[in-house]
Formats: sequence, structure tokens, C-alpha cells
Amino acid sequence: MNVGKRKPAPVDPASVPKAVVSRLSLYLRELQQLLRGGQTTVSSSQLGRLLGFTDAQVRRDLAYFGHFGQRGVGYRCDELVRAIRGILGTDREWTVAMVGVGNLGRALLGYRGFNAQGFRIVAAFDADPGKVNRTIEGIPIFPPDHLGQVIREQAIPIGLIASPAAAAQQVADQMVEAGVVGILNFAPVTLALPGHVSLVGVDLATELEQLCFSVANRAGPR
Amino acid sequence: MNVGKRKPAPVDPASVPKAVVSRLSLYLRELQQLLRGGQTTVSSSQLGRLLGFTDAQVRRDLAYFGHFGQRGVGYRCDELVRAIRGILGTDREWTVAMVGVGNLGRALLGYRGFNAQGFRIVAAFDADPGKVNRTIEGIPIFPPDHLGQVIREQAIPIGLIASPAAAAQQVADQMVEAGVVGILNFAPVTLALPGHVSLVGVDLATELEQLCFSVANRAGPR
Repeated sequence: MNVGKRKPAPVDPASVPKAVVSRLSLYLRELQQLLRGGQTTVSSSQLGRLLGFTDAQVRRDLAYFGHFGQRGVGYRCDELVRAIRGILGTDREWTVAMVGVGNLGRALLGYRGFNAQGFRIVAAFDADPGKVNRTIEGIPIFPPDHLGQVIREQAIPIGLIASPAAAAQQVADQMVEAGVVGILNFAPVTLALPGHVSLVGVDLATELEQLCFSVANRAGPR
Repeated sequence: MNVGKRKPAPVDPASVPKAVVSRLSLYLRELQQLLRGGQTTVSSSQLGRLLGFTDAQVRRDLAYFGHFGQRGVGYRCDELVRAIRGILGTDREWTVAMVGVGNLGRALLGYRGFNAQGFRIVAAFDADPGKVNRTIEGIPIFPPDHLGQVIREQAIPIGLIASPAAAAQQVADQMVEAGVVGILNFAPVTLALPGHVSLVGVDLATELEQLCFSVANRAGPR
């Protein structure tokens, strides 16, 4: 079956395990890498091998979203990239408003991976008068009290919070009030959001803790 | 049962679902927050409510690691913090070597959450001659060819890769050769590592994609 001619049906995100969706991103990265290297088709076993998964895992993950690939041929890399981007919703550009232009915020402004995957930070906000009314990495920095207006005027759907933890909930509330429907939160605090707003939290210390658990318990009793 | 007097048994990390371990970090954050607010005990339902989980979920997660809390009293916050840090292995300090002092690397050097949870970046490496032989945020920056020596001399167990994707595998290989047993990888590339080395990958664009999937599919057909 030709994935290129087939738009995947909308999926109830609640019905797809989070782990499957996060593996879609991994498949996408590898497929994009293969394409850059000039490879046009890939089998489920090769794709699995690149990521340390079984071929059955790859096929099962993709089966959540439709019938991809052809027996004996495998997947066409470009078609599968297009299909996965369609599933993830990154087949169009998403604009992003970011709050907090500290070290982390600056890193995020300069992070090329966002643009490569279709995310464009179009406005950033910071309370420091020394940072506002200029651009960093080409992105204009506004004072915090412009947040609602800028998000509304540009109909920005995604908010990115890189502010201190103490300010994060208030920032989130303002974003939601202005119409943001998804928030990526880097502040180490749990946000309370209305049900129609999606939330992904990235706590960098948590990532290190997860690693630590694996290292500490792998080493046996201490 | 008094968790304070009971050292959790070492757990086979492979037997505990990743999602459970990642929720331990969330419980830890909330408990630390409650303690800062002066609260000494918490019930499973309160802890669950703060995070949007059921009380049954909280109890089931903690049951992987032993018997915590007391019927009718709940958990003592300080004891549960101590127990979770023991489980995660963050009850002692872990030193970290970081490679790549670009925007993201600088953000990580200044990220206070690491120190708060027991991680200390003690050495950083960058190929830019303008960055080496000085300190940033109090941390010494070395040229890349010092990597093996510094890691070995200081017996640094954890490596943090914030280098460009193209350099990441080589950096990882050098870290492993020098004795690192866990790697936190921020470079958007899949690393191949020997079985005794733990790996956690953080791809910031992936986090945005996960958010996007949820937003795009929640909005229904486009």
C-alpha cells in the first residue's frame, strides 16, 4: 500500500500509548537521517536495528496509524517521513511563544532542531528591561505585559515556558487565556491547566534522575 | 511501617516500568515542595491530586519498592523524600562531565535544578579555543583531548552530551572508554552504547512533537 496517497485517519490520542508516540519521533529522526544519506527504502528490521527495537515492535507501532510499507520492499523513507509528520501534526508549521530568556531560553531560541521539525518561535518574553525591545537569534523579545496581545494577534497555538518555577503557573494561565492550546514546560513545577490544553513537561533534573536510577540499580547494592 | 528505618532493597530496573520511575521524580518534586511549605505528612490521594493521578496509582507505584506510609496517617514527607532519593540513587552526589558549551551547554551549566537534586557538573569540554582554560558558572572548561584523562582522574560516572549531533557518537565512545557508566544525551541522534552503560536521550524537538501530536489530534480532522 502506498502511504503517500493515503492520509492517516485522525487518531484519538488517548487510545495510543505515549511510548508509541514517542517512538514515532525516533523513527522520524532515523528516516530523515537515512534520506540525508541517500537511502530510499528501509525494512522494519533495519529501522528497528538502528534504534535497538525488534522489527515486530516497529510494525506494531506503525499499525496504530494505518497500513504502511510493502511486503518484500519495506517502507519508502520519504513516504513514511511524510506519513509520520502527518500523524504527529508536524506536516505544517507551528508558531511558538516563549517566556523566559535566561540561559535555557537562549539555548531554546538557538536550537536548530525546532525549525528542522516545523516549529518556529516567533515571539519571546522576559521581565528584564535589558532584554526587551531587541531581537535574539532574530526573534523579538517583548515585555511580559505584551504576552496576551502578541499571542492573540498572531494566533500562536503553542507556548513554551522557560521561566523560573515560581512564575510558571501565572505565565501558563496568561497563555491559556490568550488562546494557547499546548504548553511545553521547562520550569520544574507541575502546572494545573484546563482540560482542552495539552501539556508536556520537561524537567532536566528528572531526566538525570532517570539515568541515575538505571545506573545505581544496575550497579547492584551499594 | 516506618520508611525511615528501612533501606529499600535494590531493584532490578528492568522489572520496573519506565513510567513508574519517571513518576517517582514527580512525587519527589511535590514532596519537596510540600516540605518547603511546612507540611509534614501527605496522603496518597492528596499527592495524587497534586499531580493529576488517582490515589490507587500513587500506592501502586510506591509498592514496587516496599511498604511505605501508615494507614490513616499517610506518608511522612521527609521519610518518603529520603526513600525515593534512595530508590533513585540520588541520596548521594553524582559528578557529571559535560561536552559542548554552546547555548544549551551554558544553560545546563547554569541549571540550578541539577545541584538541588544531587548532580554536580565538575568539568566541561569544548573544541572552541576561546572557551577553554576558563571557568563558566564556576566550572572549568577543558579542550576535548583532555576528556579521558579528566574523567579517569576524577572517576566521573555520568556524561552529559550537549555537542552537535555529528560529534555525539565519538564523544560517547570516549566517555565510555574513560569509565562513564551513564550518559544523558541532548544531541538529536541515537547513540550506540555497550550494554553496561545506561542512556537517557533528551531530544527537545521530540518533546515538542509529542505536544503537537496531542494538540493536533485533539483538534480533530484538519
